[in-house]
Amino acid sequence: MKKFNTSKISGTQELLPGVQAIFSNLKRKVSDTYLKHGYQEIETPSIERIEVLLAKAGGDTEKQIYKLIKTGDKSIESADQALRFDHTVPLARYVVEHENDLNFPLKVSQLGLNFRGERAQKGRFREFYQLDIDVIGRGELSFAYDADIISTLLDALNSFNLDTPILARINNRKILTGFLEALSLTDKSNEIMNIIDHAEKVTPEQTKVSLEELPLDEPTVKQILDLINLHGSRSEVIKALGNLEIDNPTFKQGLIELDLILYLLESQGLTEQIEADLKIVRGLDYYTGTVFEFILPEHRGIGSIAGGGRYDNLTKHFSEQSFPGVGGSIGLTRLFFILNEENLLDPDTDNLLDYCVIPMSEHEYDESLNIAQKLRDNGHSTTIVFTSKKLSDKLTYASKIAKNGIVIGAEEIASHSYKAKNFQTGETTDLHIDVISKPEDFWSDED
Amino acid sequence: MKKFNTSKISGTQELLPGVQAIFSNLKRKVSDTYLKHGYQEIETPSIERIEVLLAKAGGDTEKQIYKLIKTGDKSIESADQALRFDHTVPLARYVVEHENDLNFPLKVSQLGLNFRGERAQKGRFREFYQLDIDVIGRGELSFAYDADIISTLLDALNSFNLDTPILARINNRKILTGFLEALSLTDKSNEIMNIIDHAEKVTPEQTKVSLEELPLDEPTVKQILDLINLHGSRSEVIKALGNLEIDNPTFKQGLIELDLILYLLESQGLTEQIEADLKIVRGLDYYTGTVFEFILPEHRGIGSIAGGGRYDNLTKHFSEQSFPGVGGSIGLTRLFFILNEENLLDPDTDNLLDYCVIPMSEHEYDESLNIAQKLRDNGHSTTIVFTSKKLSDKLTYASKIAKNGIVIGAEEIASHSYKAKNFQTGETTDLHIDVISKPEDFWSDED
Repeated sequence: MKKFNTSKISGTQELLPGVQAIFSNLKRKVSDTYLKHGYQEIETPSIERIEVLLAKAGGDTEKQIYKLIKTGDKSIESADQALRFDHTVPLARYVVEHENDLNFPLKVSQLGLNFRGERAQKGRFREFYQLDIDVIGRGELSFAYDADIISTLLDALNSFNLDTPILARINNRKILTGFLEALSLTDKSNEIMNIIDHAEKVTPEQTKVSLEELPLDEPTVKQILDLINLHGSRSEVIKALGNLEIDNPTFKQGLIELDLILYLLESQGLTEQIEADLKIVRGLDYYTGTVFEFILPEHRGIGSIAGGGRYDNLTKHFSEQSFPGVGGSIGLTRLFFILNEENLLDPDTDNLLDYCVIPMSEHEYDESLNIAQKLRDNGHSTTIVFTSKKLSDKLTYASKIAKNGIVIGAEEIASHSYKAKNFQTGETTDLHIDVISKPEDFWSDED
Repeated sequence: MKKFNTSKISGTQELLPGVQAIFSNLKRKVSDTYLKHGYQEIETPSIERIEVLLAKAGGDTEKQIYKLIKTGDKSIESADQALRFDHTVPLARYVVEHENDLNFPLKVSQLGLNFRGERAQKGRFREFYQLDIDVIGRGELSFAYDADIISTLLDALNSFNLDTPILARINNRKILTGFLEALSLTDKSNEIMNIIDHAEKVTPEQTKVSLEELPLDEPTVKQILDLINLHGSRSEVIKALGNLEIDNPTFKQGLIELDLILYLLESQGLTEQIEADLKIVRGLDYYTGTVFEFILPEHRGIGSIAGGGRYDNLTKHFSEQSFPGVGGSIGLTRLFFILNEENLLDPDTDNLLDYCVIPMSEHEYDESLNIAQKLRDNGHSTTIVFTSKKLSDKLTYASKIAKNGIVIGAEEIASHSYKAKNFQTGETTDLHIDVISKPEDFWSDED
């Protein structure tokens, strides 16, 4: 009976109401957690000037952006607006634009959609939620905020009540940079970091061969592999790194920062859920100090479920002034897709209304409205089914959208006795509701 | 020091964190109210195929849409995707696409951004939040849902705690349609409805002249003016309409529907906040029965702050099947802009964090983290200021972002005695917090 292709475009998310409720619930939990940790929400427009989005030229950015054609644009080349592809560029613009009206260190969250006009692939989205937090300093920013970001993200992910542990893996890129400087390998550092960044997608043997083929001699390869295989608690890893006796200022600075961040996290009682891991790099550019990612250790194949790091200067393309920052992000659309596929979502997640009130006929509509309003006043989500269908059909409908049903007939109204039936358990309970007096009955003439 | 134009594009909203908190708070209140009334959220993609958006051809729709250029598109003409300009077209597509998996009557909310690529004007937005609710039936849909939509929107607007009354003005277009049929004016009904639709933007005298110039004779003009000037409670308006003794089935059907809807609203105790008003038309096409809008009677110049109505068939462009619906919308971006300009926002709206913890030095970072976590565990939004600035600077910062400040120094930690200072009143209160034991102090070596 369709006249039209009504499917959504590929690479976007569109959920049925029951599943959407689970998604929205997770989004709200993250939003609540961010606010509880003092991250105030900001919302920049989805649409930016192309020159802003491409201020940091290079890479695949230009290919990824969705350009916009508005009234008056004559050709693709004359387009000057596009959809943002991340929250970082708009945040940089926002900070420079509103600098004099903001309080630094600025702790903000951004909870919106981002867009990438790439060809669609399974598990890659063209339109997706990124739930970001960032702290931006003016001129300077304490490394304690790196710990603040990590513990906030961990709290947000814990709120999902996944039936599997979550682990934050933390590193500092200065350690590896300084290490390679000390080995006089700075000219090969990009290639080496790239190999380390991909080490978990290949076998250990392949990583070793890749390093050897750079080429690097066997003792050097061994030193690098020993370094990146280090992982564990603060006491283990900081001690092992100290024992390497690397005399390089960048290495030492990275060690101090990593130690401080691990200390601050451990002092909050976070020990099971955090680990230093020297294999974490998080891509080649952008991050300059702390880097971290979250994984589900029982489901390593999923890869990172959230991540972030420290950047020396957020706004370098927009301002002469320096705004160091640290941030992290939960890619909720992708994460939800994966959790769903892996059956890891909390099965108890609430996705039904509390009550559905079921008037037997039109004559009970007014009373049903009052009962529904009383339930709402007591904080319950409540709907009413207004149809002329059979009672059994109404009950079927009610059981699909609500946890409890309340049938309202002439008898119930006369006796002021209302019962709620729990559709899952079959139990019924008495409701004690005072209903308000009503005006002259609409149906009285017809009776 | 800027290297770049960092302003947002015109026609979009971008707020400072304190104002954003007020906006987000209103959005959440609407979302909570919708859910409490049994409207389950759905989220369709912002991006749709152009052919879907233009399925109902004509009008200015094509000029308004923001077309998207993705990888592979060679020219504007080859673009096949665009941003949605409202929630109604995507909802129609959604209903047809997922028909077999949905429960009808389907009560849904949509809380997303819509986009119009028009030239920017003051108070007109290119990117704006529409907070919609709709009920969709399969084949049929009780008129009781019209009342459900109106009372839900009223509840949502009341949650804003505006310092001014809100009024829902309700009409049914069948009354006017039937009335004009009875006067044999059907061939002029579009022109007449258009004049009525604009009657509140001009003087009564101008409306009269416009009707006369159609041309219509003086008695007819008087009949029309008498009709559209009718407004008031159910008992007043329904009686007055009955007294007109119009023998037309469309008119009579409209009267029954309006009477029922007013009855159901009044039976919920809504009398002060609703009114029948025969001047409400809500544009020329689309709506087919109930129409309504919300105004602030003490600020009539603002115009409608929300509105909606009944449509015979949501999906006529996509399916042979009939899905009647009723819906309404709060255009929150525009409304917020107006409320802000008119100084009507609740001044008590909460836009600060509950607590800012202020460690005197790095030595109190760990204890501060624990105190902050205790406050969060008790439901308070709490941040910590990690800077090396003077205490007075930290206090200034704290007072700008939080309601209360807690200074943590060596003395407080030694005595386990913490005080919260309310920045507005200057009062201090004792906090009773047990802090967890901490690992070996990070700073102990350096001391």
